Amino acid sequence: MTLPAIFEQDRLLIEDALERLLPSEETPPAAIHRAMRYSVLAGGKRIRPILCLEAAGAISDNAPGAAELGCALEFIHTYSLIHDDLPALDNDDVRRGLPTSHKKFGEAVAILAGDALLTLAFERLAQLPIEASRRTRIIEEVAHAAGTVNGMVGGQVADLEATAGAANAAAVDYIHRAKTGAMIRAAVRTGAICAGAEEAKLEHLSRYGENIGLAFQIIDDILDVESSSQALGKTAGKDQSQRKATYPAVHGLERSRQMTADLVRRACEELGDFGRRGERLRQLAAFLASRRN
Amino acid sequence: MTLPAIFEQDRLLIEDALERLLPSEETPPAAIHRAMRYSVLAGGKRIRPILCLEAAGAISDNAPGAAELGCALEFIHTYSLIHDDLPALDNDDVRRGLPTSHKKFGEAVAILAGDALLTLAFERLAQLPIEASRRTRIIEEVAHAAGTVNGMVGGQVADLEATAGAANAAAVDYIHRAKTGAMIRAAVRTGAICAGAEEAKLEHLSRYGENIGLAFQIIDDILDVESSSQALGKTAGKDQSQRKATYPAVHGLERSRQMTADLVRRACEELGDFGRRGERLRQLAAFLASRRN
Repeated sequence: MTLPAIFEQDRLLIEDALERLLPSEETPPAAIHRAMRYSVLAGGKRIRPILCLEAAGAISDNAPGAAELGCALEFIHTYSLIHDDLPALDNDDVRRGLPTSHKKFGEAVAILAGDALLTLAFERLAQLPIEASRRTRIIEEVAHAAGTVNGMVGGQVADLEATAGAANAAAVDYIHRAKTGAMIRAAVRTGAICAGAEEAKLEHLSRYGENIGLAFQIIDDILDVESSSQALGKTAGKDQSQRKATYPAVHGLERSRQMTADLVRRACEELGDFGRRGERLRQLAAFLASRRN
Repeated sequence: MTLPAIFEQDRLLIEDALERLLPSEETPPAAIHRAMRYSVLAGGKRIRPILCLEAAGAISDNAPGAAELGCALEFIHTYSLIHDDLPALDNDDVRRGLPTSHKKFGEAVAILAGDALLTLAFERLAQLPIEASRRTRIIEEVAHAAGTVNGMVGGQVADLEATAGAANAAAVDYIHRAKTGAMIRAAVRTGAICAGAEEAKLEHLSRYGENIGLAFQIIDDILDVESSSQALGKTAGKDQSQRKATYPAVHGLERSRQMTADLVRRACEELGDFGRRGERLRQLAAFLASRRN
């Protein structure tokens, strides 16, 4: 996937901040910091931090802390991937084209590296250079989105449960909205809160985030069916072999593609009030809808 | 272990708040909320929340949020036990006299229940009914104490590494201060911050917390050698069979007992400025030093 050039500066800003916000490999105990850095700095699309920066940019030209906030979201995303890949969960050997954390460092360190990234995320959020009341609001929203009640861990559990039985449309919708959608919505919302958004604009951005969050996960499902493992940098075709609850499994590929297009269109409709300030979020939505890995 | 009667009210307050701050078993997805409630509500000594309440009480008669803060610390403590008990780590079948989380719910749910409790802790901290700047300070301190740099996860990793080789005094000291000490110190400090402590008193309480934190873990080591599994509610004698880095292994039982007594004495010396307000913390230290499970 090639990120459009206009987002390249965001990506560089984030890579730089990730490097800076992680403990160095020399900090003892070195083993855990090596593992944390390995998974975070392995690449990845940085979708959540970029959404966070761009949502902040839709509100204000100057949003201190938005990059650090984006990094905290990326730490949480990375922790979820490390734990998801464990033998007891998805049992995956490859991620972002590299051995998964437990393959490289062993299960014990992989479990603790995930724990440590989740913990570090909240430490960095508490240190954001913005007024304290915004920080606590952001922490509350992020923790809720990463949690069990309509949040990421809740979605993972529902996903585990659904793998056993026959998937239906409502279950798949819940899983996707919770497992992936909640944190993407939170990335957009908290970026905007960080930049001082008023409630009316925040509402529009929430719906933008909700729609592209769901679209993003449906595209993931579609790519799992259509792409090779090499193109994805992770094992392709796993959803079907593990009988995962996915949009293509429930609605078919063609209908899933249509739903994605509808979601992206509806996301962009929310940007009307932002005028030219909404342009980059519109481009980001279009890019996410057209990605191939 | 029988908690002295004067702390019974603390314990009841905490049990009540834990119940209230956890999602109900009916909240979907039910599987994860059942697992979270199972481990948190299985009993336990509630040392961290009680220390937190009593540190708050040493500062002020009225400290809103101290019980909720204590519960968040207990969620973090419980998550660390669930993950520590996993097959890839300590591989324990029994905890607090009951099957461990992975024995009861399977490894996948146990990993996610730990993740969820850590996440919920920060959500509840962000919601504490105190001014936002105190909340962010508390969140930062708790996250740091639970993290990798001189914190709980760092201590766990150092512990894993030490199990392989020969333990030495400096390594054991680091492990204990990080793995157990940091969160106990944080319980005392954040309780005091929640109640509005000034810096001078906070310094005294930090050293009190540091000393009893280390004493607490040394006593744990001693009890592992001396007690039966039945009395402990978890597998006894595991430290030796797993060649863990412990104080008795490095210093011998008798010297370890002396060190505990010294640490408790030094902890209590820090309470001089508190007058009668320090009395309960003094009693708590004496109780922790004399516990038998």
